[in-house]
Amino acid sequence: MAQVTLRDIADHLSMSVSTISKALKGYADISKETRELILATAEEMNYIPNASAVNLRTKQTKTIGVIVPSTEHQFFSKVLSGIIDEAEKYGYLVIILQSNENYNTEKQQLQLLKQNRVDGILISLSNETHRFEHIEKLMKEDIALVLFDKTTKLLPCSKVAIDDRQAAYSAVECLLKKGYKRIAHFRGPHIPQLSIDRFLGYKQALIDYGIPFDPSLVYVCDNNDDFKDGYENARLLVQEHKDVDAIFTITDVVAVGVMKYFKDVKISIPDDIALFGFSNWFMASVVTPSLSTVDQPTFEMGKTAAKILFEEIKALKNKVKIEPREIILPTSLKIRESI
Amino acid sequence: MAQVTLRDIADHLSMSVSTISKALKGYADISKETRELILATAEEMNYIPNASAVNLRTKQTKTIGVIVPSTEHQFFSKVLSGIIDEAEKYGYLVIILQSNENYNTEKQQLQLLKQNRVDGILISLSNETHRFEHIEKLMKEDIALVLFDKTTKLLPCSKVAIDDRQAAYSAVECLLKKGYKRIAHFRGPHIPQLSIDRFLGYKQALIDYGIPFDPSLVYVCDNNDDFKDGYENARLLVQEHKDVDAIFTITDVVAVGVMKYFKDVKISIPDDIALFGFSNWFMASVVTPSLSTVDQPTFEMGKTAAKILFEEIKALKNKVKIEPREIILPTSLKIRESI
Repeated sequence: MAQVTLRDIADHLSMSVSTISKALKGYADISKETRELILATAEEMNYIPNASAVNLRTKQTKTIGVIVPSTEHQFFSKVLSGIIDEAEKYGYLVIILQSNENYNTEKQQLQLLKQNRVDGILISLSNETHRFEHIEKLMKEDIALVLFDKTTKLLPCSKVAIDDRQAAYSAVECLLKKGYKRIAHFRGPHIPQLSIDRFLGYKQALIDYGIPFDPSLVYVCDNNDDFKDGYENARLLVQEHKDVDAIFTITDVVAVGVMKYFKDVKISIPDDIALFGFSNWFMASVVTPSLSTVDQPTFEMGKTAAKILFEEIKALKNKVKIEPREIILPTSLKIRESI
Repeated sequence: MAQVTLRDIADHLSMSVSTISKALKGYADISKETRELILATAEEMNYIPNASAVNLRTKQTKTIGVIVPSTEHQFFSKVLSGIIDEAEKYGYLVIILQSNENYNTEKQQLQLLKQNRVDGILISLSNETHRFEHIEKLMKEDIALVLFDKTTKLLPCSKVAIDDRQAAYSAVECLLKKGYKRIAHFRGPHIPQLSIDRFLGYKQALIDYGIPFDPSLVYVCDNNDDFKDGYENARLLVQEHKDVDAIFTITDVVAVGVMKYFKDVKISIPDDIALFGFSNWFMASVVTPSLSTVDQPTFEMGKTAAKILFEEIKALKNKVKIEPREIILPTSLKIRESI
């Protein structure tokens, strides 16, 4: 059965399409009786208003677009859950795209969302993105925009993130206070701001506690969502630095890779080497030994980013100028068996 | 800056809107020179065709909707990744909604997707859904539909899933062949077919190997994505059945909850009790001891479901009758330290 159209209702009632259309829109020049008859018939015939037509009329699509590096990563799947949850409250649908950490894909997806006239866009930047013309262009148009998690200092738009530098500083400071002195860092790739900030927090804590910074103790994990990088770097570290007494990793997933290697070669955590992760992934409390980590709000990050976006959408609709906001969500340390 | 309209281009070139519109659609009654001038100007002015208008014209929105119980669960986030990946190949956008395992939410979301005239819908049914009028209604309309993972025998539409009964049978058979005799089952809720099928597979294996089925060894986990249910049922099991030598759980997450409880009370896996999970969640190989489990294709399930959906969308567009298909994806056992 095809979708019921205004024409079908008109034919059924022997009325004109324009009468049906006016009645459904509640125009005053249709009598109350006629309108009620038309509404009842539309309901009976299972008529559903066409959102595309409504969109053309209202200039709003009631959809937002979200671009994330990957939906698979537990962090993003929780953020997405928060976004979808909040969108539902505002009556919005959410289109989700994954950039796979690729700049060109991200750029194309932005264009696609614009073609679909979404009312607003949320982006967590890909690791490869270090040029921002595609986003600057967007900011000049009537589309609300909020960056979250992986943001950049170079764009004056609204952002929701944590203070990665401060959070990393606290984690390393905690290790230093417990007496660890040779602390390695398994960092993320060189581009994304959060990877830079966590590294800088690590470095600053060492300096503040009088420990000379040793660049050879910093290992790069190209993919910080894959425990293989943690496993492989742990293998290298053990070969190259027998004196390391603690490792601070960019994510819990990398830490789990380290754990797996240490288990394979019977290095004991925390007796031989202590381990501190980042993100408080739900597995952190379940692995053996349980993992000390930085707790960051994920579901809440999604909700907050969506909320700000809906406020900007409303402001744009009312032709009110948007003042970009930067929201820093609080983090905390979870101290467990691994240190 | 507002979006550039056909009117803006027309004013800029001192031409009529209909000339601009015809040129952009490639109509033959516009001269080549004029068309090239208009295309160049549209490009220069950063004109983006309005997808809503194109949708009204083509009667296709090039979007599909997906309803899943939750985007947070690792299983669904991987399936979604497969769906989005496949959709991109076909030039489709994906709207994602979460039913939170609630029947009424699922029903409303289906209506919302219909209003937005998506070209097709993918659903993994909520645990609460045991009436199907909302889906039957959909099947009578021109919208392609494919169920995946949590499906039902009661609807004659296309489905993509695994053979849960057979997969569970194999897991329990593996335990029986290794000599385990008192095997408990931590099952899922009573409604969803996969929960029923995994239970039936467990029961059939016992019967076939001459072990009497004991209903008191079956514990229900209301939320099979939360390790708390596994933890709590493990606690009950230890109180009620000291002779149990193995547990087969509905999911790996439940198994991890069991592990956590056993760790807390110093019950050794597999020496005291063996443990067999389901889904080969990536943590299964990393936990201590590593978890024996049923491997099921997740990313591939998403890709397959999307592929069938796009074939149905094409068939509907060409007015070809759809023959519902049921695809059963293969599973395999991963035998690790926990048995």
